[in-house]
Amino acid sequence: MTSSATNQKWLDQVKWDEQGLVPAIAQETGTGKVLMMAWMNRQALALTVKEKHAVYWSRSRQKLWHKGEESGHVQLVQEIRLDCDNDVILLIVEQQGGIACHTGRHNCFYQRLENDHWQAVEPVLKEADQIYGKKHE
Amino acid sequence: MTSSATNQKWLDQVKWDEQGLVPAIAQETGTGKVLMMAWMNRQALALTVKEKHAVYWSRSRQKLWHKGEESGHVQLVQEIRLDCDNDVILLIVEQQGGIACHTGRHNCFYQRLENDHWQAVEPVLKEADQIYGKKHE
Repeated sequence: MTSSATNQKWLDQVKWDEQGLVPAIAQETGTGKVLMMAWMNRQALALTVKEKHAVYWSRSRQKLWHKGEESGHVQLVQEIRLDCDNDVILLIVEQQGGIACHTGRHNCFYQRLENDHWQAVEPVLKEADQIYGKKHE
Repeated sequence: MTSSATNQKWLDQVKWDEQGLVPAIAQETGTGKVLMMAWMNRQALALTVKEKHAVYWSRSRQKLWHKGEESGHVQLVQEIRLDCDNDVILLIVEQQGGIACHTGRHNCFYQRLENDHWQAVEPVLKEADQIYGKKHE
């Protein structure tokens, strides 16, 4: 990635926060399901556009995270939207493998508030050790 | 609002950030459209549950923000979800007036990336001065 690739007006127009990040929501094309929310820095967004798959910034690992790099659950990006305040990104994606969540569920929002507790309401489609191998058990 | 109302286990389980906030995504029931993303603190989430309409924390105004309090564009909350990391909320809402965005558009994600520029692709359904009155012009 050359520096010129991240030196563009449309990237300047995004209001990066004090850590240089913005929230990025991934929504599945077709179903319309909200799959997950993660974070992007300038380079992650530029790479997402260039490579046409979702690239996030992992705050826990402090590195670029090509979604699906270990699991194969790549998100092919169809469309990129920016909100009215220029500080939230919405990706419309095709979710490879039909699994966005590291827990093996279709999406990350599987806990529903029911009478003052969070109830898991989405099935695990694939166990984590099958997705990532034994090292992640 | 009594202190006991915000002193609950399900609220403790949310991973509030260093400012005591989490991102909250509002998705419209029926259409499945992602309307907006805003922020909630503990009290905003407790009030959202209690009053069954979306209450956010306005970072710019540093106060609770009952969505629609000025515009009438209240979000009636049907369902509340929490993600796998317990740090992002998803609201399934009925958007009163069919307008979520302060610009008078259906939703806030009206800018689409097209050939290295952000293009507004959603119509203004109602002008801001009609929504908020002349003082907001």
